[in-house]
Amino acid sequence: MTIDFSLSDYLKTRKAMIDHALEAYMPKEDARPPVLVKAMRYSLFAGGKRIRPILCLAAAEAAGGQISDVLPTACALEMIHTYSLIHDDLPAMDNDDLRRGRPTNHKVFGDAVAILAGDALLTEAFHLIAGRAGNLQTAPLNLLAVIRDIACAAGHDGMVGGQAVDILSEGAAGDAGTLHYIHTRKTAALIRAAVTSGACIAGAGREALSALEAYGDHIGLAFQIADDILNVEGSKEALGKNTGSDASHGKLTYPALMGLEASRNKLSTLVACALSDIEGFDGRAVPLREMAKYIMERKS
Amino acid sequence: MTIDFSLSDYLKTRKAMIDHALEAYMPKEDARPPVLVKAMRYSLFAGGKRIRPILCLAAAEAAGGQISDVLPTACALEMIHTYSLIHDDLPAMDNDDLRRGRPTNHKVFGDAVAILAGDALLTEAFHLIAGRAGNLQTAPLNLLAVIRDIACAAGHDGMVGGQAVDILSEGAAGDAGTLHYIHTRKTAALIRAAVTSGACIAGAGREALSALEAYGDHIGLAFQIADDILNVEGSKEALGKNTGSDASHGKLTYPALMGLEASRNKLSTLVACALSDIEGFDGRAVPLREMAKYIMERKS
Repeated sequence: MTIDFSLSDYLKTRKAMIDHALEAYMPKEDARPPVLVKAMRYSLFAGGKRIRPILCLAAAEAAGGQISDVLPTACALEMIHTYSLIHDDLPAMDNDDLRRGRPTNHKVFGDAVAILAGDALLTEAFHLIAGRAGNLQTAPLNLLAVIRDIACAAGHDGMVGGQAVDILSEGAAGDAGTLHYIHTRKTAALIRAAVTSGACIAGAGREALSALEAYGDHIGLAFQIADDILNVEGSKEALGKNTGSDASHGKLTYPALMGLEASRNKLSTLVACALSDIEGFDGRAVPLREMAKYIMERKS
Repeated sequence: MTIDFSLSDYLKTRKAMIDHALEAYMPKEDARPPVLVKAMRYSLFAGGKRIRPILCLAAAEAAGGQISDVLPTACALEMIHTYSLIHDDLPAMDNDDLRRGRPTNHKVFGDAVAILAGDALLTEAFHLIAGRAGNLQTAPLNLLAVIRDIACAAGHDGMVGGQAVDILSEGAAGDAGTLHYIHTRKTAALIRAAVTSGACIAGAGREALSALEAYGDHIGLAFQIADDILNVEGSKEALGKNTGSDASHGKLTYPALMGLEASRNKLSTLVACALSDIEGFDGRAVPLREMAKYIMERKS
């Protein structure tokens, strides 16, 4: 597996699997109420890379689990990620017009429907993780633990908290403590939960779970720093969104606080730590290893 | 119990119990991030009547369950209700300045924090229902069923869907089908779920659960119609919010479509149906019976 592994093939195949599953789980175009469902689907099927669900599947695989058991939770993570993008883009928040190369949700459906589409995606995510009556492959206690883990990562002291501090810190003189709070919460928390929830559903033992937690922490923070760097030096075409927006918003970012060079060094150290965290895993962890490297090298 | 029962004492005691539990479950004033947590608490502790959690406890009681087992879910229902009020009041939605006699959340904390406070309350609700590791009084499968039930009631074809259709129908020529969709979703769905989740956690059998489902459907719709009527003829002082706002927004309501008289008759019929649904229950259903009558008679 190590020799033949192609990350681009892997990501492509897994993305197709996630897209297929999301289609199966989501209400159809003609479901009620039409505008709301269209708005939910517009952002969910906007060509996202599905990094969080793929990490969730890869963690389950590394822990020796069955991918099919993890698919609903993996898809729920993408719903939560999508809801957060819809709300973050609102005029009251980051006021972004462009996302993944298309007009943002509220630009197409209006602010009210965009807010509600986000709310509905978040709600549907928990519906999905909770499984189906009489058709549970996973121990119910593990599913409840996953719901707590993901809610914690997404909530007031997780993703939402990070976004709140991010917005409230705009234009303010930033310090390293605030930057750390934003970065470990806004993006890293849900990425870490993607890894730990996949491992938990796969029934990972305490030692494996602990190693994957550390891996998730490291790549989560790495992912956000890479995002900051791309916002400075990436191309609008590759990213499908406006670059330079962090600086113009006066956002507190790694490059803004530490400079680009130090940010790149920090990113590289974090990826090295992530690889070290899962050294003890066998070949089934190759996708996790390759994804850690990919975070450092990605252009979009 | 029947002879001595005082609904006002019951509601007061139960509200105190819910308030106490919410205080225990919620992050404290000094938790991070301060502004976000303050915004969440501002609306959650704004003096709500706690009707949904009280119904949840009363349903558990009627089904022979222990109230302590239901408290987390009861509080989660209030968090979901509160989040929906915060988002509904936003300028992009109903644009209301006053709620429970105080400025609405976004008037105090700004639109961005109000959106995030709502998101965080919704997320925290599912965290709470999923229980605590190693401290579960309820069968895990029942908790997962409750999460699905409540997510379904709160989601795209439930509360959020009802709100979407409500907003999109403003000023349009309404029909009875649309009105029914809005009313069974916007308010009734979560009230029904309050009843059924309490019963489910209490381990109610199929027959009892089915009776309580019907009761929940009937009082849920009754509650929304009573709300519509109060918006026409209630006093601003008693309600703590502006009255007549439905008419000025061109909202599709029962009074607008059927007139006040027919709306009152419909309300009265629904309450009679609800009482009939739970005829077979013993004295432990007295609170549910009295609450059904209270919905019809309430002034705020």
